[in-house]
Parts: sequence; C-alpha cells; structure tokens
Amino acid sequence: MGLDNNARTAIRIGIVGYGNLGRGVEAAVARNSDMAVAGIYTRRDPAQIEPMGAGVPVHAMDSLPGHKGGIDVLVLCGGSKDDLPRQSPELAAHFSLVDSFDTHARIPEHFAAVDAAAQAGRTTALISAGWDPGMFSINRVMGEALLPDGATYTFWGKGLSQGHSDAVRRVPGVAGGVQYTIPVDEAVAQVRSGLRPALTTREKHRRECFVVLEAGADASAVRKTIVTMPHYFDEYDTTVHFIGAEELAREHGAMPHGGFVIRSGNTSQENKQVIEYRLQLDSNPEFTSSVLVAYARAVHRMQQAGQWGCKTVFDVAPGLLSPRSAAELRAQLL
Amino acid sequence: MGLDNNARTAIRIGIVGYGNLGRGVEAAVARNSDMAVAGIYTRRDPAQIEPMGAGVPVHAMDSLPGHKGGIDVLVLCGGSKDDLPRQSPELAAHFSLVDSFDTHARIPEHFAAVDAAAQAGRTTALISAGWDPGMFSINRVMGEALLPDGATYTFWGKGLSQGHSDAVRRVPGVAGGVQYTIPVDEAVAQVRSGLRPALTTREKHRRECFVVLEAGADASAVRKTIVTMPHYFDEYDTTVHFIGAEELAREHGAMPHGGFVIRSGNTSQENKQVIEYRLQLDSNPEFTSSVLVAYARAVHRMQQAGQWGCKTVFDVAPGLLSPRSAAELRAQLL
Repeated sequence: MGLDNNARTAIRIGIVGYGNLGRGVEAAVARNSDMAVAGIYTRRDPAQIEPMGAGVPVHAMDSLPGHKGGIDVLVLCGGSKDDLPRQSPELAAHFSLVDSFDTHARIPEHFAAVDAAAQAGRTTALISAGWDPGMFSINRVMGEALLPDGATYTFWGKGLSQGHSDAVRRVPGVAGGVQYTIPVDEAVAQVRSGLRPALTTREKHRRECFVVLEAGADASAVRKTIVTMPHYFDEYDTTVHFIGAEELAREHGAMPHGGFVIRSGNTSQENKQVIEYRLQLDSNPEFTSSVLVAYARAVHRMQQAGQWGCKTVFDVAPGLLSPRSAAELRAQLL
Repeated sequence: MGLDNNARTAIRIGIVGYGNLGRGVEAAVARNSDMAVAGIYTRRDPAQIEPMGAGVPVHAMDSLPGHKGGIDVLVLCGGSKDDLPRQSPELAAHFSLVDSFDTHARIPEHFAAVDAAAQAGRTTALISAGWDPGMFSINRVMGEALLPDGATYTFWGKGLSQGHSDAVRRVPGVAGGVQYTIPVDEAVAQVRSGLRPALTTREKHRRECFVVLEAGADASAVRKTIVTMPHYFDEYDTTVHFIGAEELAREHGAMPHGGFVIRSGNTSQENKQVIEYRLQLDSNPEFTSSVLVAYARAVHRMQQAGQWGCKTVFDVAPGLLSPRSAAELRAQLL
C-alpha cells in the first residue's frame, strides 16, 4: 500500500511454459523496463525452444528448484485443467508466482491449496489473473459496491472461443474450424440504457462457426450436430458457414476477443447510473500475458512487504500495478 | 487485504455538510445495509435542515469533536476551494474520513497536510474519491500498467459542467444559464479504433450553452463574450442557444455527466488492444456520493487494520469496497 518503487534492479521473471501465453509474457516483460526474463522453463526439450529475445535462457522444468535464488516471480503459463492445479501449489511453496487459473467453479479449492503452500513458504501467489477472471471480475465487484441497488451484466466477444472451437473440431466430418462468440446488439443496447432487462442465454450471445468439411462429409448433418450440441450450442442461435481450408487459414488465424461488464443501478428513484468496462482485443493471449506481468510486479512488492499467502486481483491496490512511485501517480494520474 | 467482513454492527457515518453531495451520501448509506448515518453536521442552523431519513440527527458543526466516540468515518461534503483544504487536515487528526478534493494541481499539497494529521491521529483519511479524480484515475493507472506501450485518453460528458456554467452566468447581460461539455464523436471513434491520434483540445470536446438573457441585453455581444472567454471557451467550438427562463428551469435542472477513459496500446507489432471505461450518469453528485460511501467502508477496514495515514483510490484493493467477505467474492464474482 502506498509503496514507493525505488528498486534499482529489475524484477526477475521466470516463465513456466512456452506456448501462446508464455510467448506473450516474454513480449510483455520486454515492454516493462523494470523487469527482465530470468529464464524460460519447459517440459519440452529446451534445445527445441527459440525465445523471441536474444540471450534469454531456456531450461528444463526440473532445473527450476535450483534457480530459486535467481527468480523473483514465476509467471505460470500452463492450462487450468491439467497444469495449474498441480503446479501452482507445488511451486508456491518455493516461489512467488502469478497464474491465470480460469475454471471459475474450482477457484475456492485452488485458492486453499495455493494459500497453504504460500503461507508455509512465505511467498505471495496470485491466482486467476487475466481478463475474465481478472479485469472483468474487478469491475463486477466495484460496480456492485458503487451501485448496490443495481444489476451486473457480462458480455463476451466478439471473440474466438477456444473451448467452442475445439467442440466444433470434434464433430465427425469436420476437418477444421473456429467459433466466434458475439454479444447480441439489442441486448447490449437495452443494458446500456439502464433498464436492467432480464435476459436469457439466447438473448445475450449468439455463436458463429466457420467450418471446413472433410471430403465427402454431409454438410447438413454436420450443421445439425453443431447447433444442437448440448451445453455448447443448444441454448444459442448458431450460424454455421462452410468454407475452404485456405480461407480458414487466411481469415481465421487470429485470436481476437473482448467483451463488456456493465453495471446499471439507481442512486435515487429518479436517477439511473451506468458503468461500463469494455475490452477490444486483437490478441486474447497477448493481453492476458500483459495482465499477468503487471500483477507479477504487484506480487513482488507484496512479497517484499510481508503480505504472504494466496491473493487474487481483489486484494491488489491499483497503485501496486504501476512502475511509477505513489507520489508520482498522485501528482500525475489522480 | 483479504479481510473478511464479520462486523455485526453497522459502520457509523458522519456527514459533514448537507448540500447536493451530503444528501447523496445520506441516500447512498440508506442503500448499504452494513452502514448507518450517525449524524449530519452543518454550519447552518441545524433546525433549518430536513434530512431525508426519519430520525437522522442534525448537529451544529462545532459539536463534532464531542461526538468522536460515536462515528467511525466522516464523509466530507464541502467544496475543494474553501472547505476541504482546511477541514480535511483538521478533522483527520481525530477522525477517519473520505473527501472528494478535486483540484488536481493541489493534490500533493493536500495529501501532505492530511497525511501528517492522520499519521499523528492514527486515523485513515482517503482524499480525492469520486469519479474524476477517482474511478477515472484508477482506469488511467491500470490502463497504463497493462499496456505500457500505448496512450491514454480521457473524455468528459455529455455533462453539465458546474465551473463553466458559473462562468457563463457571470457574463454581463446573462440572467441564467448552463453549459454542457460534449465529447466529439469523431475523436472518440478514432481513439476506440486504437489509432492513438494526437488530438487538440478543440478536437476532443465541444461546448454547448443554454442562456437566458436579461431584459434588453445584446444577444450577439453576450455570445461573443462567451465563445472568446479565455481558458473556459476560447480553445473550444462553442454553441450558444438563447432560451426562456421557463425552458431553462424545465429542461436543464438535472445534473447529468459522465465520460470515458480509453487506453489503447500494442502488445506486439501486429496486435492492438483497447480498454475503455465509461460512465453515463443521470446525477453527477449522487454518483460521486455513492463512490464516497463505498470508500468509507474501505477506510474503516484499513483503519481497523492499522493502515493509518492519508490514502487515495490507488491504495485501496477492490475487495475492500465490497460488503461481501473475501471468500464470497472469490466464489461468486471472480
């Protein structure tokens, strides 16, 4: 709280896992002059990894414990299903860290496991950073606190959904494809007006798929399997476009995403107030990585201040995210 | 940080000053079940004040020191020019408090005076809460921290500007009037596209005045005096509408405001990211009051945790603003 940042040496970041997210973390650290990548840690053969930055060392995962003295904060770039539930508690016993654990229903359990390890190891471990969970969560909490007599709406998109794209690609007869989640304009307009509408799943979002068929596949059968798929598509209006493999590669290789959190509420019978937080992301993984890196700075400061244990974005004061001193922030950005 | 809120007794709020902001604070406290108004303190004759809530006690300002044991947090509702520079340091010596000091250039000086008093008194005093400074400041800091390679834009409006309305009313020949600040649509669209345009003052906002003339006043002279007024209007495109006193009262009595903070930046050469925070307020003072009251909750918790001294919104973790426990926030809003 109110820490002045007089550190003269860079915060040393260890990157655990080097997929889209790990590469994004490397790029984000390069944009923050008070940080440096101490090393990339991988389960693959380190010789096969080519970091973007010249001279960035790549190590095998099992060398991590031996590098404890050379790393201030680990940024974990693995998946929420198989990697983080095991890695975060294991590593929090020895390192301060940030992860992007995003299985909402299992957050309390993950928190408890990481907290026990971090308390014992006197480290600071922040879980579930990113944009949702993350920035969107902060705006849900603050919106509700500022306008207690109100309603909160989260819309996602327009954006590529990894989970839904995977579901489309598992349909028999599909050679490739992607799925975009799209907020329904009418719903967004109603919410923005402060009317607090009751909206069904179908009224809030629609889904759009771009699919490449296998040779000889039956388009109408594929379409039907997609649009009726339980949990993934049956509660939505879904459009399926069949395209060629070249068009898929050319037009649908990017990973845009974003969305809105809108809180509308009344401060008196007459007066409505609307708060909106919006993200428009060309690259979902690169933005998530940028959030992880800003929180790595806060984690380092909290660890240094003796604030050990598991934390979330709800526990981090905004000033801790900035490389600027508290006095500078007050003078220039307040 | 990560405090659990198990308080069974309401946080007792003292309201200092009972104008638009003070009335808004009373209304906001009524919407938060973990808080209660302990008293309203005024420099006017207490017998002349009618609080909205039945049974809310109204006291003369000088009885405040004697009520120290019955108040947890004071919310100061005076003005930044004459009231707060004197009141906030004086009262912070004895009470935890929140103010809405909004003279940006004098914040460091105000901070130093309040900090000395609060450190000595072991109180927690948060200055400059509201929406700008306040919510907009948080979004400027976080936007810059998440996208260091980028640019931040603040737009205000459409909204009634008190300072500019006062300036219009001081023009000879003007019997009454209001001024609206309006963001220029083309500028907002350019900024949202992530282009990072360089915008002049004139390109960002325009100004619109609704003016009632005194009998016999020269409309074209009044218009010229307004649109060429240094500091207030000369750098903007300003439209002046002349209307009747009845229309002014009927159509321009509300105090809407709002605006945008937009951060756009690159996370790689190819990928632009845009973060937007937007407020649409039917009542500027009522929203400001709601922010003050949420921060009063945080201030009370920070005081209880021994985090004394002067604070700003940059020092407050989002979870501290919510009446819910940290565990509940993680389970339900993360």
